[in-house]
Amino acid sequence: MSEGPKNLIFAADLGGTHLRAATVDERGTIHFRSKQNTPQGTDPNQIVTAVVNAVGEYKNESGATDGLKAISLVVPGTVNVDAGTVVKAPNLPCLDGFPLASALTSELGLPAILENDANAAAVGEMWQGAARGCRTIICVTLGTGVGGGIILDGELWRGVDGAAAEIGHMCVDPFGGVACTCGSRGCLEVFASATAIVRMTREASPRYPDSVLHNARALTAQTIFEAGLGGDELGLQVFRRMGVYLGIGLANLINILNPEMIVIGGGVVNGWDLFEKHMLQQVEERAFPLLAARVRIERAKCGDDAGLLGAARLAIANP
Amino acid sequence: MSEGPKNLIFAADLGGTHLRAATVDERGTIHFRSKQNTPQGTDPNQIVTAVVNAVGEYKNESGATDGLKAISLVVPGTVNVDAGTVVKAPNLPCLDGFPLASALTSELGLPAILENDANAAAVGEMWQGAARGCRTIICVTLGTGVGGGIILDGELWRGVDGAAAEIGHMCVDPFGGVACTCGSRGCLEVFASATAIVRMTREASPRYPDSVLHNARALTAQTIFEAGLGGDELGLQVFRRMGVYLGIGLANLINILNPEMIVIGGGVVNGWDLFEKHMLQQVEERAFPLLAARVRIERAKCGDDAGLLGAARLAIANP
Repeated sequence: MSEGPKNLIFAADLGGTHLRAATVDERGTIHFRSKQNTPQGTDPNQIVTAVVNAVGEYKNESGATDGLKAISLVVPGTVNVDAGTVVKAPNLPCLDGFPLASALTSELGLPAILENDANAAAVGEMWQGAARGCRTIICVTLGTGVGGGIILDGELWRGVDGAAAEIGHMCVDPFGGVACTCGSRGCLEVFASATAIVRMTREASPRYPDSVLHNARALTAQTIFEAGLGGDELGLQVFRRMGVYLGIGLANLINILNPEMIVIGGGVVNGWDLFEKHMLQQVEERAFPLLAARVRIERAKCGDDAGLLGAARLAIANP
Repeated sequence: MSEGPKNLIFAADLGGTHLRAATVDERGTIHFRSKQNTPQGTDPNQIVTAVVNAVGEYKNESGATDGLKAISLVVPGTVNVDAGTVVKAPNLPCLDGFPLASALTSELGLPAILENDANAAAVGEMWQGAARGCRTIICVTLGTGVGGGIILDGELWRGVDGAAAEIGHMCVDPFGGVACTCGSRGCLEVFASATAIVRMTREASPRYPDSVLHNARALTAQTIFEAGLGGDELGLQVFRRMGVYLGIGLANLINILNPEMIVIGGGVVNGWDLFEKHMLQQVEERAFPLLAARVRIERAKCGDDAGLLGAARLAIANP
């Protein structure tokens, strides 16, 4: 019989590339971890099987035969939380309309819930990260795209279709901005995502013939950030521009929602030291003084675990 | 003794210019109305006296000696609802920090509550107006400025300082827009308020030498709208521009909050026939299709009574 902790949540974070999983206890401690490639086929049952395999791996490794209380899966897309179905997952279209929660329950004999990944990250940061002790926060995740999660007075705000908090698709430059994959233009995502950092660097590079980035082995948000840290004018200019637009977007969120805290996570937050000043200047110039004085703008603290922790917290809170 | 209805709310809508008051019953019927000039002095007790006088006028006119259940006052500014104090009222600075609710209670011997005017208008429209039957709406009031109220799952979202829903100060053109009274630039208010309609008309008029508006007795949002309705190119252009920016702002709200309905009120909504098409086109181009398909965008139906009705509803709901 198992000697491990009881009442564990089996949390899984389904990304476009990897499926990461962990067992999480009620205090937010992670006990087991696994990572596998996300199945890329057209059959949603392959994803169910991948989660089932991760649970099997946990059981083999821990020797546990019980102790799991629930499965909580976060996905990169719009979710109908009540029904436990995926509404739309642009990077995993095989899941569109699929009843993932009930499929997991019938395979594993455990309650299962679904959540959007950016929403779960917000919950994770409020439970175990930068926003501990807060009740009203906005979490902005700067990754390949820009995601968002909104928690108002302790509860995720999901909108009437579970599709709220599309913060990356707030327009921050309606006419100057480039086209976005969503069909609009000038969205925050085309200025503040990792993809945007690389694109803006390519666009601006002819004006910076001396930039070290012309010789970079690979142009990524990270290499551009490192160049900027070393004083490269092109890298500095790109993160300045990113920070200005991020600040414009944050000022809008502050004026609309009057939050306690904004937490900024995702890979691009590594560039914090280069964009912080420009972001804060826009917030100061554009948000109402009362609201700007109230809000704290902080780096996320849970890193890649924010979604897993949030998934676990949601399962604990909704037994 | 009174023969009138019992359990009436005495609702008052304090504007920068007028103090309007009404008694409202539990079904939303208005029984008595009064209107007086807003005291312009520096003593907040003058405003208390004005409300007390309006109550006295009601009692004299109706012969009622009882029947009032509560006083509910809406003010043009930020309110601490729990404390019943005005935090900041830019057009009535004598109220800043003033405990208006307790002052009314001690003068009138009745429970008293305060609310922000745009928040109350949202509640009024959901109770008796365009958003009847909805639970998640955003109300945008296009007046001298642009105000907003956000109701999520039946509850006003006031933010952590009671200052949320500053929809007029969402940035819709960060660099092209003119300076706003709030200190930022390119706010929705500088494109979609009555003040903005007049300013944009003045700015554009040299390019329209044949416009009938050069001969207008007075340049107001209403005369500009009427000129546009009659085919005047200057009037049409101004409302087209206003509609484009309003649509950009609404698309942001839709992507952030995923509401059931957006209600647009205030005097400028009279120009609906001129700006609707342009507004909807931006929403279609910029909001997520799932969310744009869900949301209904409607004209307000309560007119000037939205705030009074909302005030009454809030007092009924929070006995």
